[in-house]
Amino acid sequence: MKTLLIIGIGAGHPEHITVQAARALARVDVFFLMDKGDHKGKLNALRKEILERHATPGAYRVVEVRQPERPAGPDYRTSVNTLNARKQAAFERLLDDAVADGECAGVLVWGDPSLYDSTLRIVEAIAANSARAVHYEVFPGVTSIQALTAAHRITLNSIAGAVQITTGRRLSAGMPEGVDTVVVMLDAQDSFKALVGQNLDIYWGAYVGTADEVLLSGRLDDMAQTIADARQQARSQHGWIMDSYLLRRRV
Amino acid sequence: MKTLLIIGIGAGHPEHITVQAARALARVDVFFLMDKGDHKGKLNALRKEILERHATPGAYRVVEVRQPERPAGPDYRTSVNTLNARKQAAFERLLDDAVADGECAGVLVWGDPSLYDSTLRIVEAIAANSARAVHYEVFPGVTSIQALTAAHRITLNSIAGAVQITTGRRLSAGMPEGVDTVVVMLDAQDSFKALVGQNLDIYWGAYVGTADEVLLSGRLDDMAQTIADARQQARSQHGWIMDSYLLRRRV
Repeated sequence: MKTLLIIGIGAGHPEHITVQAARALARVDVFFLMDKGDHKGKLNALRKEILERHATPGAYRVVEVRQPERPAGPDYRTSVNTLNARKQAAFERLLDDAVADGECAGVLVWGDPSLYDSTLRIVEAIAANSARAVHYEVFPGVTSIQALTAAHRITLNSIAGAVQITTGRRLSAGMPEGVDTVVVMLDAQDSFKALVGQNLDIYWGAYVGTADEVLLSGRLDDMAQTIADARQQARSQHGWIMDSYLLRRRV
Repeated sequence: MKTLLIIGIGAGHPEHITVQAARALARVDVFFLMDKGDHKGKLNALRKEILERHATPGAYRVVEVRQPERPAGPDYRTSVNTLNARKQAAFERLLDDAVADGECAGVLVWGDPSLYDSTLRIVEAIAANSARAVHYEVFPGVTSIQALTAAHRITLNSIAGAVQITTGRRLSAGMPEGVDTVVVMLDAQDSFKALVGQNLDIYWGAYVGTADEVLLSGRLDDMAQTIADARQQARSQHGWIMDSYLLRRRV
């Protein structure tokens, strides 16, 4: 039997990790670090800092593998499924080759493992469908949503209100019915621009919790271009961006 | 100037507190504990355990106040507004009478301060509208949503899907359009029962992360009565219940 810990480490601030997750790190013999090979040097540095602070010194090893490519294609879901199949094969090789029987492997996940991350689906498929005897545990983490609302010192929901968590792609179709708050993640297209004129406030944050944190908020009609410009500038400066935003109907 | 720290302490497991929140606890001179005066003895014990582990021994005091009553009334929102005005008056008295100038006060919030909790709204009103010089900071925490998904080892969203967070009251109107996942909080009425026959899975958890944790999941059509019974039994046994659930359309 091999054990795999899927550990949420928070959304960017090195101290947003929970005490439980920090303890889980200390159990791990081998960490799988799967990298996209892009310019996320600061994220890697943050991950290393977290390992150095919480994993057991001298008692763990790190196996770095390049994350498989997501194939291009018009259907996002199919393309993600193909990517996940490739990731699953990579995970299976790691479990077979890099983890001895009785050992504990660990995967660090930004934010929380439940939110817009495929590790859980992949590990579930490995545990369910393969001949490998794998026991896995999940450790929750603070998501970028909590980091965003804490940084802006705002609530997520209005009183007795509902909240939708969605993607940039979906927001392009318009503000969802029945909710007065929407949190948007994975928006590469400044989808908020399409909602100007709908009496919304926006609370935007990039690299929240890190030294590079940028926060902007106000009436969407006043802030849309400012935020689009700030995103563009941040992306140019850092080579990548990690951001999210909340939209709320004004009362 | 007085400082007020609003600290998310996680949703029940004493180690779901973040390292940052634990450090914040150590800065606090006086904790405000506002209790409902009901049977939540275990929650109080858990809160005390968290203080004993993380606050600075001998360097803090605790002021316990009875939470004001929420007036009955057909309009939930108005009734909550009245409750919050009463809480605000109570908080103002505490800040005036129990905190010296230059001191740091702390409020512990279950889960995360952004989610179905009024502390942030109340403190914002105090800081904005009163003559008091109050600086406040917010520390995010793991919500009961992350605790629930981690305990069930499931994702919150489907691939590229949207998620709605809502209340039992709102769910009674039916499964929202445009999302395949709904998380329901504050449901006193077993509202999920109204959605039997709609091809949904349910993942339910009570007292998640504590020694009393109960988890049930499966097809809603098969599990609705079982979960309703389990809720009733848990409420009878403990005198209160802290639970939530996730509904997902079956593919």
